[in-house]
Amino acid sequence: MENLEKYRQLIIKAQQKIFFNYKPSVKSLYAPVYYALENGKKIRPICLLITAEAFGQDINNVMPAALAIEMFHNFTLVHDDVMDRSPLRRGKPTVYHKWDINQAILSGDAMLLLVYQTLLQLDEKFIKPATELLTWAGLKVSEGQQLDLEFETKNKVSLNQYLKMIELKTAVLLATSFKMGALLANASKSAQNNIYQFGKNLGLAFQIQDDYLDLYADQNVFGKKIGNDIITHKKTYLFLKALETADAQTKKTLISTFYDENLPAEQKIEKIKQIYSTLEVPQQTLTTIENLYNLSQKYLFKIKFIDNSARERIWQIAQYLMKRKK
Amino acid sequence: MENLEKYRQLIIKAQQKIFFNYKPSVKSLYAPVYYALENGKKIRPICLLITAEAFGQDINNVMPAALAIEMFHNFTLVHDDVMDRSPLRRGKPTVYHKWDINQAILSGDAMLLLVYQTLLQLDEKFIKPATELLTWAGLKVSEGQQLDLEFETKNKVSLNQYLKMIELKTAVLLATSFKMGALLANASKSAQNNIYQFGKNLGLAFQIQDDYLDLYADQNVFGKKIGNDIITHKKTYLFLKALETADAQTKKTLISTFYDENLPAEQKIEKIKQIYSTLEVPQQTLTTIENLYNLSQKYLFKIKFIDNSARERIWQIAQYLMKRKK
Repeated sequence: MENLEKYRQLIIKAQQKIFFNYKPSVKSLYAPVYYALENGKKIRPICLLITAEAFGQDINNVMPAALAIEMFHNFTLVHDDVMDRSPLRRGKPTVYHKWDINQAILSGDAMLLLVYQTLLQLDEKFIKPATELLTWAGLKVSEGQQLDLEFETKNKVSLNQYLKMIELKTAVLLATSFKMGALLANASKSAQNNIYQFGKNLGLAFQIQDDYLDLYADQNVFGKKIGNDIITHKKTYLFLKALETADAQTKKTLISTFYDENLPAEQKIEKIKQIYSTLEVPQQTLTTIENLYNLSQKYLFKIKFIDNSARERIWQIAQYLMKRKK
Repeated sequence: MENLEKYRQLIIKAQQKIFFNYKPSVKSLYAPVYYALENGKKIRPICLLITAEAFGQDINNVMPAALAIEMFHNFTLVHDDVMDRSPLRRGKPTVYHKWDINQAILSGDAMLLLVYQTLLQLDEKFIKPATELLTWAGLKVSEGQQLDLEFETKNKVSLNQYLKMIELKTAVLLATSFKMGALLANASKSAQNNIYQFGKNLGLAFQIQDDYLDLYADQNVFGKKIGNDIITHKKTYLFLKALETADAQTKKTLISTFYDENLPAEQKIEKIKQIYSTLEVPQQTLTTIENLYNLSQKYLFKIKFIDNSARERIWQIAQYLMKRKK
């Protein structure tokens, strides 16, 4: 997607000026901040810039908000990696692993403060609405992470609770990235709402597809190990869908297999795949993803007053996220 | 201090309305937030309210900023307690100890987001300057905590480095509480600067007195165990002053005693007290505190355009913090 790459380069260039007006007294606090911002697809700021442009705003006027959202996203990753004790992220050691827990907490905190410092670089009239929107989204993302942590030790999680969790933890921030672009381009309330719903449903589709690919991706194309969610006992869409579909006996077999510590990984993955297959979980999951993807498109087409080429550019992001050709 | 108690009660009452405009989707995230806000002397918001009033502003107009500073202060405590693995705070289990590390990280993050949500309740014209000032202070506090963490494993810490650390970690937020009150009362830049310097020097005096009382307080009056800083190997003002004053031989004895794991606590404290006494550390420390206290008063008297009763009320806080009668 060379078109998206152009925006990504602009974002990387602008990121280097985040500290333009601020002189740190202690530099070591910020080394993990720079490190955490490296790489990454910069999806959220790209969504924001393209949407603002679609509604007729100059991207230079909204760049601080784009940088703030990217900073916020990476702040959540730094702290989530502590909470999950994850050693790797984007193929590199996490801040938690490269430094330690305390450094990841503290530099993460600094990142959240820098989110707001960056928003303050917006034109004065945008500071209040942008800060309001991102703070609201930030609290929702925290609530999603809270649910995710609680699900780890919870016995029964319903599919609806799972959908609520991924909406809060993932879809809200993607939706907010689009909405922020519209807001800062002075789009109407109804346009802001439609683009939010577009982003939310796209985010849900993306997250469920992520669960699907963990088990059904082509190992040669997929970057990670197939079936990792099963090995780490993650309650994914697939697992919860199977539990809701299965009869009592199959449910019992599924649960005992899922938590069986003596079964070798390969055998476990194979056995669970068989159960999913009998229950038609993969087909049903693909249908759910398709429906959400189509719903997101429906919301995009509801938006008036943007021309078709602008709509096309926004839809490109959806295709890129879902890795679809058309 | 019944006069200060009046402000404290107003703050407690206002705290209950922080969530007035926000409906959480997940309530469990916020239980540790409420818990962390309980008790506490509410010094910083009191400083802010009294200063704003001294400069002629209605305290209702600045209450959101007072609540935000108190929220920020408690956010730092929740995360600091994780970093220090402290089980107790204000005589109660810390959030980290009552829940766990992950909950303390996540609810602490929510507190920092709530800081900004609270600032957004200010009158529109105050949102930008208040957010700017508190974000700046927040980064300085994080930098101070960074230095504090680094000092733990550092062999050589100078007295100047220590003063820089406590300025950032403690004095900046106290100074900012006063300055914020002046800022939101539209006080002149020079008044804002003087009240900031007043608060900064008062904060330094307070922190050094805290180090002093850890060893020299009357056990019957002091709430904590005497000599705790020595037992936990904390590099306090006393210790660093002694190192800077001592000759090579005394320095060697001091360090070997300080880190001697075989010496019983009582004996260690007694021996170090003797070394401090020979080096006149207690007297010199009291002089430093006195000088900072007098310097803070000098800045308070530099402020024009506030009447003497207002100046008297601000000075009451200084006396209260230092527990002095006059």
